[in-house]
Amino acid sequence: MKKYSVSIIGASGYSGAELTRLLLRHPMVELQELYAFSNAGNRVSDLYAALHCDKVYKPYNGETESDIYFLALPHGEALQLVPSLVAAGKMVIDLSGDFRLNNPVEHKAFYKQDKSPSAVMTYGMPELFREDIINARAISNPGCYATSIILGLAPLFLGTESSMTVRAVNCTSTSGISGAGRSSKTELSFSEMSENIRAYKVGVHQHTPEIMQTLGTSATNPSFDFTFTPMIGALIRGIYSVLNVQLDRPADADDIASLYQKFYQNAPFVCVRSSMTEIKHVAHTNFCDVHLAHVTASGSLVIVTAIDNLLKGAAGQAIQNMNLMLGFDESTGLLG
Amino acid sequence: MKKYSVSIIGASGYSGAELTRLLLRHPMVELQELYAFSNAGNRVSDLYAALHCDKVYKPYNGETESDIYFLALPHGEALQLVPSLVAAGKMVIDLSGDFRLNNPVEHKAFYKQDKSPSAVMTYGMPELFREDIINARAISNPGCYATSIILGLAPLFLGTESSMTVRAVNCTSTSGISGAGRSSKTELSFSEMSENIRAYKVGVHQHTPEIMQTLGTSATNPSFDFTFTPMIGALIRGIYSVLNVQLDRPADADDIASLYQKFYQNAPFVCVRSSMTEIKHVAHTNFCDVHLAHVTASGSLVIVTAIDNLLKGAAGQAIQNMNLMLGFDESTGLLG
Amino acid sequence: MKKYSVSIIGASGYSGAELTRLLLRHPMVELQELYAFSNAGNRVSDLYAALHCDKVYKPYNGETESDIYFLALPHGEALQLVPSLVAAGKMVIDLSGDFRLNNPVEHKAFYKQDKSPSAVMTYGMPELFREDIINARAISNPGCYATSIILGLAPLFLGTESSMTVRAVNCTSTSGISGAGRSSKTELSFSEMSENIRAYKVGVHQHTPEIMQTLGTSATNPSFDFTFTPMIGALIRGIYSVLNVQLDRPADADDIASLYQKFYQNAPFVCVRSSMTEIKHVAHTNFCDVHLAHVTASGSLVIVTAIDNLLKGAAGQAIQNMNLMLGFDESTGLLG
Amino acid sequence: MKKYSVSIIGASGYSGAELTRLLLRHPMVELQELYAFSNAGNRVSDLYAALHCDKVYKPYNGETESDIYFLALPHGEALQLVPSLVAAGKMVIDLSGDFRLNNPVEHKAFYKQDKSPSAVMTYGMPELFREDIINARAISNPGCYATSIILGLAPLFLGTESSMTVRAVNCTSTSGISGAGRSSKTELSFSEMSENIRAYKVGVHQHTPEIMQTLGTSATNPSFDFTFTPMIGALIRGIYSVLNVQLDRPADADDIASLYQKFYQNAPFVCVRSSMTEIKHVAHTNFCDVHLAHVTASGSLVIVTAIDNLLKGAAGQAIQNMNLMLGFDESTGLLG
Repeated sequence: MKKYSVSIIGASGYSGAELTRLLLRHPMVELQELYAFSNAGNRVSDLYAALHCDKVYKPYNGETESDIYFLALPHGEALQLVPSLVAAGKMVIDLSGDFRLNNPVEHKAFYKQDKSPSAVMTYGMPELFREDIINARAISNPGCYATSIILGLAPLFLGTESSMTVRAVNCTSTSGISGAGRSSKTELSFSEMSENIRAYKVGVHQHTPEIMQTLGTSATNPSFDFTFTPMIGALIRGIYSVLNVQLDRPADADDIASLYQKFYQNAPFVCVRSSMTEIKHVAHTNFCDVHLAHVTASGSLVIVTAIDNLLKGAAGQAIQNMNLMLGFDESTGLLG
Repeated sequence: MKKYSVSIIGASGYSGAELTRLLLRHPMVELQELYAFSNAGNRVSDLYAALHCDKVYKPYNGETESDIYFLALPHGEALQLVPSLVAAGKMVIDLSGDFRLNNPVEHKAFYKQDKSPSAVMTYGMPELFREDIINARAISNPGCYATSIILGLAPLFLGTESSMTVRAVNCTSTSGISGAGRSSKTELSFSEMSENIRAYKVGVHQHTPEIMQTLGTSATNPSFDFTFTPMIGALIRGIYSVLNVQLDRPADADDIASLYQKFYQNAPFVCVRSSMTEIKHVAHTNFCDVHLAHVTASGSLVIVTAIDNLLKGAAGQAIQNMNLMLGFDESTGLLG
Repeated sequence: MKKYSVSIIGASGYSGAELTRLLLRHPMVELQELYAFSNAGNRVSDLYAALHCDKVYKPYNGETESDIYFLALPHGEALQLVPSLVAAGKMVIDLSGDFRLNNPVEHKAFYKQDKSPSAVMTYGMPELFREDIINARAISNPGCYATSIILGLAPLFLGTESSMTVRAVNCTSTSGISGAGRSSKTELSFSEMSENIRAYKVGVHQHTPEIMQTLGTSATNPSFDFTFTPMIGALIRGIYSVLNVQLDRPADADDIASLYQKFYQNAPFVCVRSSMTEIKHVAHTNFCDVHLAHVTASGSLVIVTAIDNLLKGAAGQAIQNMNLMLGFDESTGLLG
Repeated sequence: MKKYSVSIIGASGYSGAELTRLLLRHPMVELQELYAFSNAGNRVSDLYAALHCDKVYKPYNGETESDIYFLALPHGEALQLVPSLVAAGKMVIDLSGDFRLNNPVEHKAFYKQDKSPSAVMTYGMPELFREDIINARAISNPGCYATSIILGLAPLFLGTESSMTVRAVNCTSTSGISGAGRSSKTELSFSEMSENIRAYKVGVHQHTPEIMQTLGTSATNPSFDFTFTPMIGALIRGIYSVLNVQLDRPADADDIASLYQKFYQNAPFVCVRSSMTEIKHVAHTNFCDVHLAHVTASGSLVIVTAIDNLLKGAAGQAIQNMNLMLGFDESTGLLG
């Protein structure tokens, strides 16, 4: 069987390295070119020896010979590239935030970028938009925090008969430090971050409008109170989200559990657990664990979710989207 | 000047070791006896070489020759000891949860202990009850999570003209693993907890009624919605609490900041910061950092606090209480 | 094609869990039964949620219905089981130290076990004994430290024209804490081991005779000075070995490099690197990296090796041995 | 009593911050000015909030109003400053490597600096040169690795009747990452170094000639084989050194132990332990622990030492030197 040809633009960061690893072992594709910028000229093995890959990072020159392009670039860099790749008939999966928001005002407010998205891409969260993704040619891959939060809340907002009852949501998410990318910032050095925890961008993180939009409302005109506190902790990988939800109505723990089980019954990578989850349960996997940790009769819920930020929160979900676009089983190359 | 004589009952755990360290260097007291149970017969230096202390842990036999006794025992063990020490005219500072709750029904519900407190001790949080502590003979030292949460919320509840306006509070606190004590549990081993985060006792942690009682309400009949999610993360020391508060009224960031500054103006160990705090700012100190991270006009607040769980959350606060009881400067032996 | 049936006895420890993971994804075998002792009755997913395996650990009752048995038991436990499995015609791969040593006196001295090995099994280090393993029915899988040290030294001792020139070897190896097993010891807790390093069993570790025997000499009557200092550090996985070698003759860096390259030219899982290696290069892989870090004209060498203690040091090497015994490509199921 | 006035040049790095902390709490000195370069204009509390110090870092302009100057600058920067401070009659303690080596050829070879030392300063290792330090006006403070290695070997070389019997020494030292300074290098980020170990500068580290010179020989013309392998591991603080020594004569464990005990009997900060040491025993202290882990009759020794690289390996030892120079008790301000 002919394999699809795949290239990565922005291959030398952590998400790019995970994409490289996953595509090298994927049975249905052939990894073609790895494009990078400051690292152009280096071998993959110079940066990521564990990948045992001798390919050389090249600067991207507009080449369009592959069937599929993954973009794992800093925010803003994909704005130009995606339209030309789409125009050249390529399948595109963009891991940046450049095309996630439909509202250009929100995009500008949260990404501090003057340019507004020039194309609307399909939002690549398979558990919510599987059919759209199957028919899409261009995917905007969800944010890492957004994935961990949306998957924890979606049944309440998008499940049958469940919507419109949420009064307030407070999210506190702890991310592994790899979420900040392959970085040389002093404040992300081992000596600063071991034995440490630090919140940042409280209430103003750019995943806020993405979460709101996907849940059917907006950051600009929200239908419920929403606060998001991101933190980094002393671990490399993983996002652990604690979601405090206040419903407008009484709640029954069994009903809520059943709502969640039903909502995700066909989702191979969401695991609704009856016991507590932890980062260790999902690290190095594409799974999102969801646990209903606390439900009170008065309608207070605590939902805990865990993902690997580089897999379900980035490269793994991107491969999941590619599998759907190409008509493969959703989990091809993502298990084991 | 004659030094006060001090002994520790339950000296071989992590809080006991920090008490040992602090009392050895305290200029106004003489560390007398170190009592332990399973570790009786060992030298301090066998367990805590860094303390360079050759004293031998002894089993406690009812001796009452010291002026002051610190108790750092597992919950339930202090219930018998405190009354006899008080009866013998000793000053007592108990670091367990045995005497923190006034309501015996709540004590039984949250500590799973049939016995109800036989004496009401002074709750030893100097920032709220300094005068009471100065006049007290027996102190119940606050819980670690409780300290980090109460100090973050107290100005809203107990500051002048501020009370009665809170509608809901969601607390998500990450603790260092030393909070679980000097333990041999598999789930606290390095191999299980490095690169990991795990929530536990969501909504049912025993510090819940302590927090509510101290804020002027109760867990049994709360005046506002309250949810507390404790977690352990991959660090030894520290508690980092994210407090989501929903007020019943609009909020002004400057007013709230001013309320906090004023409330803690005479508290040498609470630092209201205008920039983000992190565990690293308080580790190995007796300080509690408080930062108002986010305030919306509609009355949503995010308050972040950080303490060292073994110091301000246990041994350090206990010494602070001792200093007040003995008429010393509150910070004697606790700085530098 | 019919798949081989495989079972694991001692499946609930860390090596057992890695075997489970690798066998579940191996294309040529079917994982049959998982036997455990204290964990019998639990599901795999209760202990190792990330494996997403619903099998139940059972107590082992002498069953012999599988084609192949892996034993991952505490030292001493395999002594009885291996002979009966071999007698029943089963292929056996034992990950313990029970059958590694040919000399019963050394076995008793280093393993403190009165029983001497009742059968000589093939020592399963494919890079040295590939042909023997292909023809073997029973394999004794090498120790983790032993693997990292032997692979770093073997070319000097077993390479053509190179032997008999080593005067002294000092090995200092740092292991991840998972090497101590799934443990509930206080001294392996996160609070004790984060930010810590500790040597142990200096000069008396049980891998010493295994290393000497495999290099063609013996611990009892060594042909060169040998000292081994094992340490545990603040990491879960990996062994990093620094091997100081003093030759009896002058050395040329290029000659030594060429000797190593040639020795491992057909070894798919040994990577002789020209730049420094680190744990990160081999973690979560079956590779052993070897780097000649320093060679002086007078014949002093420093060789640095890195492996994942649970993979190349245990479960991965065991699968590599199984592949050879079954006639598969050596790396089947071990890449990507 | 009048306090001595002290300033720090190069105060914003990790050693500078530890000096700041120690000098702020030292009872006999007054911390005057904190000089920094890239961080000039910042408050101490901006970089090191835990110090609760509001002083502002200033650029150094040649001021000489303090009694004592500590220099904690990158290598090369102190070469100009020390002579002018000495000429101005100031006491100087330099923490860099600029004045440690007597041999300008070795200085140039190992520090890659063309300039040779323009003054010979007293080498500030109190355990070896206490009398010289008491009478000195200018101290060159030892290197961190050098301290951990020299203190582990000195009794063999400098103890009565013990010298000239060492044939070979192999040192393998693991350092906390703070040893690399307050850094923004990608390879020192948390994501790169957590769960990692990496050797570097094997055989060529600049502490090699310092060690040899202090032990009475030289790197250029050594009296014994010497190899030093430095590594960084996943911890912030500490150096753990494993010293393999081969004597030219048989060894008796009790004799060696007695030699070490006697050699350090008057050294308040060296602890010769009869049980294994670990980083945890010395972290956040000025102690060096030394343990004779293994002695064979044929004269092979394994000595293990542990220090806190920022204290005994830098700022703590510097204060110890200051105490001696000023006639105070050696441990003033360094205990508890």
